[in-house]
Order: sequence, then C-alpha cells, then structure tokens
Amino acid sequence: MNNPITTILNADDYLRMALKEDITSEDITTNAVMKEYKLGSADLLCKQDGILAGIHIFCRVFTLLDENVKFETYFQDGDEIHSGDLLAKVTGDIRVLLSGERTALNYLQRMSGIATYTHSVAKLLEGSHTKLLDTRKTTPNMRLFEKYAVKVGGGYNHRYNLSDGILIKDNHIGAAGGVKEAVAMAKEYASFVRKIEIEAETLDMVREAVEAGADIIMLDNMDEATMKQAIAIIDGRAETECSGNITKENIKKITSLGVDYVSSGALTHSSPILDVSLKNLKAI
Amino acid sequence: MNNPITTILNADDYLRMALKEDITSEDITTNAVMKEYKLGSADLLCKQDGILAGIHIFCRVFTLLDENVKFETYFQDGDEIHSGDLLAKVTGDIRVLLSGERTALNYLQRMSGIATYTHSVAKLLEGSHTKLLDTRKTTPNMRLFEKYAVKVGGGYNHRYNLSDGILIKDNHIGAAGGVKEAVAMAKEYASFVRKIEIEAETLDMVREAVEAGADIIMLDNMDEATMKQAIAIIDGRAETECSGNITKENIKKITSLGVDYVSSGALTHSSPILDVSLKNLKAI
Amino acid sequence: MNNPITTILNADDYLRMALKEDITSEDITTNAVMKEYKLGSADLLCKQDGILAGIHIFCRVFTLLDENVKFETYFQDGDEIHSGDLLAKVTGDIRVLLSGERTALNYLQRMSGIATYTHSVAKLLEGSHTKLLDTRKTTPNMRLFEKYAVKVGGGYNHRYNLSDGILIKDNHIGAAGGVKEAVAMAKEYASFVRKIEIEAETLDMVREAVEAGADIIMLDNMDEATMKQAIAIIDGRAETECSGNITKENIKKITSLGVDYVSSGALTHSSPILDVSLKNLKAI
Amino acid sequence: MNNPITTILNADDYLRMALKEDITSEDITTNAVMKEYKLGSADLLCKQDGILAGIHIFCRVFTLLDENVKFETYFQDGDEIHSGDLLAKVTGDIRVLLSGERTALNYLQRMSGIATYTHSVAKLLEGSHTKLLDTRKTTPNMRLFEKYAVKVGGGYNHRYNLSDGILIKDNHIGAAGGVKEAVAMAKEYASFVRKIEIEAETLDMVREAVEAGADIIMLDNMDEATMKQAIAIIDGRAETECSGNITKENIKKITSLGVDYVSSGALTHSSPILDVSLKNLKAI
Amino acid sequence: MNNPITTILNADDYLRMALKEDITSEDITTNAVMKEYKLGSADLLCKQDGILAGIHIFCRVFTLLDENVKFETYFQDGDEIHSGDLLAKVTGDIRVLLSGERTALNYLQRMSGIATYTHSVAKLLEGSHTKLLDTRKTTPNMRLFEKYAVKVGGGYNHRYNLSDGILIKDNHIGAAGGVKEAVAMAKEYASFVRKIEIEAETLDMVREAVEAGADIIMLDNMDEATMKQAIAIIDGRAETECSGNITKENIKKITSLGVDYVSSGALTHSSPILDVSLKNLKAI
Amino acid sequence: MNNPITTILNADDYLRMALKEDITSEDITTNAVMKEYKLGSADLLCKQDGILAGIHIFCRVFTLLDENVKFETYFQDGDEIHSGDLLAKVTGDIRVLLSGERTALNYLQRMSGIATYTHSVAKLLEGSHTKLLDTRKTTPNMRLFEKYAVKVGGGYNHRYNLSDGILIKDNHIGAAGGVKEAVAMAKEYASFVRKIEIEAETLDMVREAVEAGADIIMLDNMDEATMKQAIAIIDGRAETECSGNITKENIKKITSLGVDYVSSGALTHSSPILDVSLKNLKAI
Repeated sequence: MNNPITTILNADDYLRMALKEDITSEDITTNAVMKEYKLGSADLLCKQDGILAGIHIFCRVFTLLDENVKFETYFQDGDEIHSGDLLAKVTGDIRVLLSGERTALNYLQRMSGIATYTHSVAKLLEGSHTKLLDTRKTTPNMRLFEKYAVKVGGGYNHRYNLSDGILIKDNHIGAAGGVKEAVAMAKEYASFVRKIEIEAETLDMVREAVEAGADIIMLDNMDEATMKQAIAIIDGRAETECSGNITKENIKKITSLGVDYVSSGALTHSSPILDVSLKNLKAI
Repeated sequence: MNNPITTILNADDYLRMALKEDITSEDITTNAVMKEYKLGSADLLCKQDGILAGIHIFCRVFTLLDENVKFETYFQDGDEIHSGDLLAKVTGDIRVLLSGERTALNYLQRMSGIATYTHSVAKLLEGSHTKLLDTRKTTPNMRLFEKYAVKVGGGYNHRYNLSDGILIKDNHIGAAGGVKEAVAMAKEYASFVRKIEIEAETLDMVREAVEAGADIIMLDNMDEATMKQAIAIIDGRAETECSGNITKENIKKITSLGVDYVSSGALTHSSPILDVSLKNLKAI
Repeated sequence: MNNPITTILNADDYLRMALKEDITSEDITTNAVMKEYKLGSADLLCKQDGILAGIHIFCRVFTLLDENVKFETYFQDGDEIHSGDLLAKVTGDIRVLLSGERTALNYLQRMSGIATYTHSVAKLLEGSHTKLLDTRKTTPNMRLFEKYAVKVGGGYNHRYNLSDGILIKDNHIGAAGGVKEAVAMAKEYASFVRKIEIEAETLDMVREAVEAGADIIMLDNMDEATMKQAIAIIDGRAETECSGNITKENIKKITSLGVDYVSSGALTHSSPILDVSLKNLKAI
Repeated sequence: MNNPITTILNADDYLRMALKEDITSEDITTNAVMKEYKLGSADLLCKQDGILAGIHIFCRVFTLLDENVKFETYFQDGDEIHSGDLLAKVTGDIRVLLSGERTALNYLQRMSGIATYTHSVAKLLEGSHTKLLDTRKTTPNMRLFEKYAVKVGGGYNHRYNLSDGILIKDNHIGAAGGVKEAVAMAKEYASFVRKIEIEAETLDMVREAVEAGADIIMLDNMDEATMKQAIAIIDGRAETECSGNITKENIKKITSLGVDYVSSGALTHSSPILDVSLKNLKAI
Repeated sequence: MNNPITTILNADDYLRMALKEDITSEDITTNAVMKEYKLGSADLLCKQDGILAGIHIFCRVFTLLDENVKFETYFQDGDEIHSGDLLAKVTGDIRVLLSGERTALNYLQRMSGIATYTHSVAKLLEGSHTKLLDTRKTTPNMRLFEKYAVKVGGGYNHRYNLSDGILIKDNHIGAAGGVKEAVAMAKEYASFVRKIEIEAETLDMVREAVEAGADIIMLDNMDEATMKQAIAIIDGRAETECSGNITKENIKKITSLGVDYVSSGALTHSSPILDVSLKNLKAI
Repeated sequence: MNNPITTILNADDYLRMALKEDITSEDITTNAVMKEYKLGSADLLCKQDGILAGIHIFCRVFTLLDENVKFETYFQDGDEIHSGDLLAKVTGDIRVLLSGERTALNYLQRMSGIATYTHSVAKLLEGSHTKLLDTRKTTPNMRLFEKYAVKVGGGYNHRYNLSDGILIKDNHIGAAGGVKEAVAMAKEYASFVRKIEIEAETLDMVREAVEAGADIIMLDNMDEATMKQAIAIIDGRAETECSGNITKENIKKITSLGVDYVSSGALTHSSPILDVSLKNLKAI
C-alpha cells in the first residue's frame, strides 16, 4: 500500500466509503454558516508519544474531497513522534478542512496506534532472530491499512487473506485424511509460489509435518517445554511460528527458544489509538 | 441497524466487502483439501466475560456466503455472557464455516468489545440522570456496527454523521460572526427536525448560546468549577453535554454536577475486543 | 449539496449513473461524424421565466465527461431568470457538448422547475411567520437535488430521510401502546440531536402529544376550526406543522391560523420543469 | 423492463439505491417503537382516476427489503383505475411495510402519472395513423421506469439513449460537411440494425435527406404549411416525425397532415403524479 | 468507444476492475525494492505483423494508476504495424510502468489480435459489396473493446446487445404464432429507430419474412443453392445476412451470391492475440 | 473458484456485469413476442471434442437472472466430452433461457476452450516431472475463470496477481542494486508465506540467485545448452521455471532437461473456444 499508485487504486474506495459514511448528504453545520470558499490552514498536532503511520492516507482523505488542498508534512511514516510535535500543516478551503477532519483523523489515529503498539512489542524481540507477525484478526474493511501499520511499526505480515496463503488447520487435516495427505494436496493445488504452513498441536504432528515437506510449522498453543522439543525435531527443516497467547510478559521467553516467528492478533485487534488532533484552524 | 430489514439493506454491503477482503479469489486451503460438500457444525464459544453484541451480524456473514447455513443462538445482543458460555451453534457446509469464520468473528469480537466497555462506563453513571454518549471517533467503515454496539452496551448515540446533526464549533462561530449569528444561521438552514448544538469554551459563550436559543450546549474542556457555573447559567434552558478527557476516574464527579450528557470517544476508538471463538468444528 | 465538496462526494455518483443511462456504450451519432477533437461553444438560454437552480450540477455533468470544459455563468442559483436570458456559455470539445447536453439539461430543468414552483408558493406565505416545507415525496434517486432546489426556491427542508428524523405516525403509536409511550420510546432510542415529531389527528391526541413532550406536532388533515383549536391547545409548547391537501388556494387561510409550518409534497412530485435550452453550438 | 428477469437485472440497482437514499442507516422511528417482528397488512388505494403503471416495481421495493412480503394485486399495468379502487394488499412484517412504503409509492405515483398523462394524449391520436413518441427528456436515473410507463399509457418509445439510436442534428451535419455526407457517415459507422434519423429544418434539407437515404426525417419546428410540403416531398420514402411545441391543442391538426410520429418531452418531464396511497396498515 | 469522452465514462470501470484483478492489495515485488519515485521510460514494441487497436486503452490503463505518466505514440489504431516497430514510448514513475504493464498489454494484445484477424478476413471481401459483421460471441466484459477492434480491423458491428437490436429467432416465431405475427409484434413493441431482423431457415420463411416487412433477413445455415434462391426471392426488398460456418475458405463463394452481410463469431471468440511487448524499461 | 461459496462471493460480480453488458435495458425481441411466463427446456450440446470447464458458471448465469431455473448436468468439469454429447438440460421460463443463453455460452465456450488446449499441452509432459504453468497473460476481467480452466485442463497456476507472488525481474534487480540485494529486500518485505522467484538471463545471475536464497529461478529465454548448465548449477537448491517461446514442438525437449515448470501465456491468451450450443429450446 505504501506508494501512491496503490493508494489510488485500492485505498481510495475505502476512503471514499468512509467519507460517505460521515457525509451522507452534506455537512450541514458548515454549509449553514460558510456559504463561500475561504482559504484556511490547520495544524496536525501529536498529543501522545508514538510511531506515525498513515500520514499519506490522512492527506488523501482531504484530496478526495478537493484536489486543491495542500500539505506540508514534517514527519514520515515510521518516525517516532512526541506529544506536541507539529506533524503537518494542511491548507485549503476551510469547508474542506472541516468536512474531512474527522475521517482523516480516524484513519491516522488508528494506524498510528497500531504502529506504536507493534513497535513496543517488536522492541522486545530485538537481539533475537525472531520476527513479530500480525494475523487476520483485523478490523473489517481496514486490513489494507492495519497490515501496513504493522509493517511501519516494525512487525511483519502473515498471509494477507485466505486467497494468498496456505494454512492447514486441524479440520483440513481431518478432511484430507492426515497431515501427509493434507500437505500433498495443498502442494498439488496451490500456486507454486506459495509456501505451505500447517498447524501442529502435538509433537507427532510436528514430525509428520516436517516429513511431509511443510515449509512452515505453526506450534499452536504449546507450552514452552513442548515448543522446545518441537523446534529440536524440526531442526531447521521448516520455519516455525509460535501462535496463541503471546503477551508482552512471555514473549521474551518464547523467542529464547529459537522460534522463527511469533504472531499476535492483538497488534491489530486491540491496539489503542494514538491521539493526534487538527488544531489552529484559521482563515488565511 | 437492529432489525433484519436494515441489516440487509445497509450492512450487507460492508459485510460483503469484508468477506472479499479476506477472499479475493478463493479459500485455497479449503479448496485444496475439501473438494466436496460436507455438512458440519461448530460452536461459538465465549472466552471472556462481557456483553454480547452483533450476533445477527455474525450469522449474516455466513448467510451471505451460503444461504443454507443454520444457526441456533442461545444468547441475544445485550446479554451478559461469561467465559465458557456456548453462544451459538452453526451448522452448514464445512467449507462455508471455514471460509466465513474469521470475518464473522472479527465483527463479533469488536462489537462485543465495544458493548462490554460501554457497559462498564455506563454503570458508573447509574443513579444519576446523566447519559453516556458516543462520538464520531469510530473506525472507518464500521460506524453502523460500532454505534449500534454502544447502544447495546447501555450508551446513547450522538449524531450519526455530519449530515444529520448540527454541531457548531469555534470555526463555525468565527465564520458566522458570533454565537448568536451562528445559531440563527443554523436554525435557518438545517432541517427543522434537528436540534442545534454549539460548543462553548467560556461562560460568556455559554450565556450567548443559551440566549441565542441553542438546544444543546457542549461544555468543552471546562474544569469542574466552570462547568458548575455554566450549568447554573443555563438553568435548564438547554441540554448540556460534557466532552473531553472523560475517564472512568473523573466521570462520577462530572455527573454529580448535573450535566445531561457526557461523551466519550474511547467507547469506539479504544475498546479492546471481547474474545470469542469458533470451536469444535466437525463433520456431522 | 451546495458546495463543491459535497457535489463531488455525493452528487457525482448520481450524475455518472445518469450519464451512463444515456450513453451505455458510445454516442454513435457524434462518433460517426466527428472523429476528431474540435473546440466549440454553446449558449445556455432561458426559455421561460422562473428561478434558476442547479447551475453547478449542469456544469458538473460536462466536467465528468471531460475536465477541460470551461464555463462562464451569468446567473446564480436562486436568481430570477427570464425568457431570453443568456444563463451561461459552455466551451469545450464539441463532442462533449453534444454528448453531455441532454443529461445536463434534464437536471437543470427539473431543479429549476422545482425552485420556480416552490418560490411561487413561498410568496403566498410572505408576511406570515409560517414556513413552507417539502416532504419525502421526491423522485427516486433525485432527493439530493430536489431538496436542494426547494431551498433555492425559498422553501425549507423537512427531514431528509427515515434515518435522520423522527416522525411518529398512528401505526407507531399503536405499536407503542399510546402517544405518551411512543414519544418516550423515541426519546430514549433516537440520537439526542433529533427533535421528536408526532402526527395528531384529533384534539385528544394533540393534548397527549404536547404533554408527552413532543417537539413538533403535525396536524394531519384537520379542518380549519379543529386546527385553530389545536394550535390554541399547544400554545407554543411545541412547533406545529400542517400537512395534507395544501393548495395555492387554501394556503393563506391556513397560515392565518398561526401554524408554524405547512408541508407540500407537490413541490417535488408535481412541479413542471422550467424550459432551458442549449443553443448556438458552434466550432470556434 | 416488463418481465421479472429484467426487473431483477437492471431495475434492482436503482430500487436499492432509492431505498438507501431513504434509509442511510436505519428507520429510527420504527426501530424505536417496534422492536420485534409483527405480521401486518396494508391496502394500496387509488385516490385519483388514471392508468396504473409500475405495480411490479411497487412490490419489488418491499421484496428487496424482505423477501417474505406477500402481495395480492387486483389490477395490472395498463388498467384504468378509479379513485377508491383497492389496487393491492401487502402482507408482511409491519416494520418492512413502514420502511418501504414511501419509496414504493414514489415509484408507483410517478410511473402511473406518466401513463395517465400519456394515455390522455394518445387518445387524441385515435383514428389517425400517427403514433405518439417520448423523448430523452426523462428524469435522471428514471429512464427505465419512465419509458416503460409511456408504453403502458399507449405511447411509443423513441431511441432509448445516445448509444442505441442515430439522430443527426444540425451540428452533426455541419461537422460532416452536409446532409448527404452525414447520412453516409452514419450508415457506415452505425450498427446495421439501426435506422438513420435526421433533423430537417427546411424543405431543402428534407429533399437532401430523403435522397441521401435517411430512414426517418424529423420535421423540426416547422409550421403547418411547411410540414405539409415536407410530407409531400418525402412521399413515403422515409418515415416522418414531428417534434417541438406539441400541445394537446395543436396535436390533432398536426396528425391530420399525415405525419407518422409526433414526439413530446412533456410525457416524461412534466406529467403530474397519480395519487395512490398505502392505508389501513394493521397488525394481523 | 473511440473518443476520450466515452473512454472515461464507460471503459474506465472495466479498466479499473482489470487493474484490481491484478493488484488486490499492492505490487509486492515493486514495493519491496523500489521505495521511492524514480522517473523512467519504456518502449512499446511490436513483435508480430498486424493491425494496431487499443493504443488509447493501453495508455489509459497507466493514466488510471498515475495521471502523470506521459506517452509518445508513433502509430494510430488501424495502422498496419510490423515486427520491430516502436509503437510508443511511455515515461513516468518506474513503479507505475511495472505495475500497469501486464494489464495494459493484455488489452492491447487482444484488441490488436482481433483487428488483425478481422482485417485478414475483410480483405477477402474486397471487390464485393458484402460487409463483414461481428456477433455477440464476445468475451464477457470485453464487448466494448472487442466490437471496437472489429471496426478498427475493417469489419462492421452487428447489434451491440439484446437491448439495442431486434433479432427474431425460431423460438420467438413459435411464441408469436408465425413469421408475420412475430414481425408485427416486434414493429409494434420496439423503438421505431430499430430495424427488424429475422432468422429464416427455409425459403418459405424467407417469403413470409419479406412480405411481413422485415428489414433484414438472416439466412441461417443454408447451402449455397438455397441461399441463392433466397436472395432471388428477397430481390432487394430486405437486406440479407449470411450466418453460420463462415470460413476463410468458403467466404468468397458466399459473397459471390450477392449477400449483403456475412457474420462471424470467430472474429471475437477465436482470434489469437497480436504479440506486443514493453521493453527497455530504464531510469532516466 | 471451484466451490459454490466462492462462486457466489467473487464470480457473481463478473457474471452480473456480463449480463448487463448484454442487457442494458431489456431483451426487446423476447419482450416483444413473449409477454407471459412459459415453462420450457433446452439442451446444452457439445459440438466439438474437448474438456468441459465452467459448467457451474454456465448454470449460475441463468440463476442470477431467475433463481427458479433448474439444471440436470450430465458431465462435470474436467470430463472429456465429444461432439454430440448432451451436456446438460436447462428448464425454466423460456424468456430467461433466451435472455441468458449468449452470456452463459460465452463463458462456457471460452473456459472449455482453455481447458481443452491446456490438456493437449499437458499431455505432452506426461512421463516427465515437469509441470505446465499459466501466466498473468489472461483476458482482462476473466482471470478467475481462465486460471480455473487451466487447472481443469491439467495445468498449474503461477501466481494469481502482483499482490500474491514475488517475481523479481531485471528492473527490480537494477533498482535494488543486484541480485543478492533484490532477493534480500523481497524476503524482508514480502509476507513470510511467499516464495521468492527471480528471473535469470545468464549463468552468472543463476549462480547469484541460488546463493542469495531464491526459492524459484526463472530461466528466461535461454537456449537449451544454457538451460542445461543452469539446471546443473542450481542442482536442486531452487525450483526452476522455463519461460518464453514454449511451443508444442519444443516442449518435450525442454522438459527432458529436467526443468521443474514450463509456463505458457498461450494457454489463456490464444486458446480457441470449444464449440458448445444451446439447442432444442421448446415449451413444455
């Protein structure tokens, strides 16, 4: 998502829908008191320390309302920002600034909140080779924005959706008739550019999976001792992902076991927002 | 949103988009190992105490994939639910259960999270006549679902968007030439079914607003002493809303001043999800 | 709708659909004889006295086809225009002028027709404090344009739709169990920025409604004597709306009773168009 | 449009948009007082004499909200209906009846209004071989419905839009370099299933057009004497259409000249609605 | 389709959908290695002799991604092009060139392939008065582009779709009760700008059709002798179309019989593509 | 795509668009002569030997017009079919059969054509371990259907689009600063479920690529001798794909070199259709 091409092609539909959610016919307050074009500017201020994510989306929301709005941005996605920082200056028809403000901020706050929280978790992994992954537990119709924010915060993306990644779960295994059969069927069916990941709940399943040629093995809700054994069994023949009940408290211990990836749904489903605000709106 | 009519008319578009976000071409894992229809069932389990919200949305997601999926629901929106409760049983083609699971849960978790958090704040207001309001600080393209969840949790909705409620802010006042002028222009312009709300930052503005005939006066970021005076000045001639920096800690004090409404963005922008899960998926 | 922001966000979808209704593949006549770009201009002429409404929509239709079309407009929405007046000059690729003409005129004629008819009715109310309201009896997919035209003509808008205004009718009262219960349920349910309007057919209902705290009481199909009594009963404690069978003939009498609003469906459902025409198209 | 197949394929998009125009989030009044499903029925009553058109569209609006609504219809499109006639009975969830009523009636009133007015004009042509045509002066996004209503009322449709009919106007002639060249270019370019129509303002143009092989010649704003001569010149070698300033007063004279078609924009742009109403809504 | 107006109005929706088919979230390879804007250019090269069609569509695909892409085109639609020819130069952000390349080429290759094949067939008709028609056997969602390519290649378009042309087949005749009745019903029902075409399988049907006033008679799967007789019977009173089993081998014989049109589904359903390629992409 | 869930979610949009391409307002011929519902049936006949693909899409097209159409299908996707075979029987309102026929056949013919051609190529690879891949050279807005048809015919899918597969080309390498850097950047950026493929034109690039840890190496336009050396260098450390100028003639030689995959654009861009037809339509 992070170049202007993709923003226009894929993000615009969501942004326009979000604007229409907030303006189903017109901005009645603004139209009541501001009948004419008036040039103005406003400051985008940071009100809480964190990581910025989504500044181009913030700008794009206004541009979709009026292509003449101008922006000076003083920070980029991924930058650490601090309460009080002036992040950007927006200049344009005051009516556009008023009508687009809430939608633009709703995106920016959420995306920066996710980047900030992800960053705080990713820092706990520094020094290890373990990488932090997101999940598909995203807010509906926000995945494009939330997965991008995870990357901005220093995390990595797991598969984007059900169509671009294989993850064989116990029900799939049951339907296929076994771990070996499931991996074989996935390899036969899926595009050859995809790796095959499989969930393993026991050491027996781990053994079967690695022998069946799985590329990635998810160690699902294992305790530390079992996870350690699993990693020993796999012995580098497949990548390993640890999933389930990752907390800031236990994450260091888990990474010390040498797992390649830990995945956390909380990155996208429970990050609090980062407080940013549009202030000092005035005619110029 | 809370009847089947509106669900079909307005929510379906969002639900279908969310499904397509997760399935851009096909569910490759499921299609790889399950080539044929197989009837199965799964249990929707509660894994955390809270308030249920969105159970009909959860069901609707599956129905949009396949109208033959059947549901038995054991709790309704607004019910208190407890970790371990069996919330519902879903029966249908196992492939549909697998393909729709994540999207259905993403809605239910978020909506129930908001209802749960709202409920916990609303309880603090019990015994007072003050009501708890949400704001427009919702997740983009989730407003329909989030505002409904606030109501389920015992909160009340502020205006839905910029088109259906008047809220005169300082920039509008500036453009209009004063509080009195702004209120007059809003009354002249807006549909006669709308009340006029205005933000007041000082006691002078409060005086002007109430004399101009505002229906609702928002006391914006006032300290307690000032708020008390403001309420005395207004003296029942307009409704009052307290906004800004409401926390679980200070909310009781604020309500004791006799304000009619307190509004809180956190209800929708920072509630953690409520953990619910689809388990025991099996062929039948 | 009356600023460029909202036009782009909400009106564009309708305008583009209307253009596609008229051009499902191509303008075959124009493409047959005009293979190349040729600059031209045309005059927008008034052919009937009235009130102009929708001139920016007229222009926008052409702009959606080709952003290089230029306009000089000599009148604004709300202006009185007379047969023979040159309203605007349009300059651009002749092929665009030919392909967009009919759709642009279809909007302008209808909107100006509504403004003209509304104006003629609103004039009858001059000198009284009664205001003229529209209704939801609009042409499907034209409400944005028709409600705006009513305002341009000197009328006022009733609620925009079922989602932004409360109007309790007899069936609602029946379901609720009485006037008092219905008003209470509406106050509890609806956003706190909305007024509560209720239809009353008898003086008893009027009494109940005003006591229940209704903000607006619609006097539905009452004769003049009853209406007079109703207004006396209400005595300023609620606003009053007279609805049903309003004609140019009886409207003066009704307003003399002191009702606050009269609403008329005919403004939007039965106004004849105002004749305007694009003439003198020529290469330049 | 007049079979169920096309209704679903093409009309549904318009109907759904119209419903969303009236219900952007929910029907707040209904949801406030009617929390549960309740079966009810209502009567569709005729309140003005005329011709019925759009009864299946009226039904379809409700069906799109809820597929369980049932209808008994006592009249068909094209039938003469009289004030007081019971046109149909609608049975279903009362909430659906309330939420869909206005949109369903807005379609039916307008379509029946057009059929009624068209019928009154078409009757003036009885006994002659002249047929009454509509034009492209339809309400935006209503053409499908309005052109159908014209047929129901006894009129005939001119081309549907710019993509399916050729009509060469003076600007096209100018661009082509003459009548002969324009007709030749149109024949070469357009699909071979289309006839070529050309506007002629003078007798010389009529001569040229008929010699160039035009299939239809539109006699544009000619006086009666000229029109008579034009028809004599054409002498059956092309069909003739008389357009411009057709009124109920002059239409008989015009048809007596032997013109094949007269076209009237008023059929679709200025017909008043036919008054129909949904009454006696009650629980059953 | 062949002017910029229609391209924007009708083709854009298809082009944008095609781009989204190829970029559901982002171009991951390009985003991985090219984080910043870099100006570049690429050459559109012809790799096979043929007829160019769709050069403006090729350009438009890139423009929809980024309106700053620039083009120098050295050939026009309809030009003969030869392997090795430099067709155009594209200049813009290299990331846009990479992301749009495949979609742009997929259109151009297919359209040029159809134009090339159509041209090769149309050449066989040179010297006769018979014209080559396409059919409705087009690739779904490609008709706008494929019918245009047929014209570029020297063919003519049959009706565009079921809504803009009448073609009475045997089932229609059966339903109507006979050829005469079917033609009469079609004339009564269809817009007066449409010609009536009817399929005839026997000489008796040909006779009936011409007497019923059909404008065009399709000689369906007749052998040469029968076709000859049919044309003699018709004797210029209707146009004739020969359809079914037209091959490059038998087409000359068929045209020698004096039929007005031959139609071929292969033009659109079985043309091979024309090989064109984007090469020499480099930073500048 | 090959289960009913995905068909409804993703294919329906394309199918509905295709139907609307063919029916922009109504099926005028059918509506002219068939005013009433009449039950009928028709036979889907095979007119050319090949492989069936898309039978459920064929059925779905009719179902979208009218959910009451019934099907008996005698063959499944992937079955060999022969000229004269009765593939299916369709029963429903004759008007639906007539209106949906062309669109349904256009899908089935093209999909079966691709499956048939793919099958003929895939057969040449029998006995080797080489697999046949498709490419992104698909018809715009047909990829879902065409990639599925390739699988039905015995081929395998390469990446679906730019968002779900990494393929590093020379321009990416240039931008990254070298093969090693490009592979590293791709591994860092892309989702961890994706393999990294890189194009190599020389043996040096092959060496670099395999050392950089590429998962798949595309041997681009290499002659046989070079390809042999490349495969020896790689020595099983990465998968190999041969791309460019694959023909039925040279494919056996190429596979004898031991390459893992050969990819061919012709499967989707130049397969001729398979002739199938709807016959014996009659009332029942």
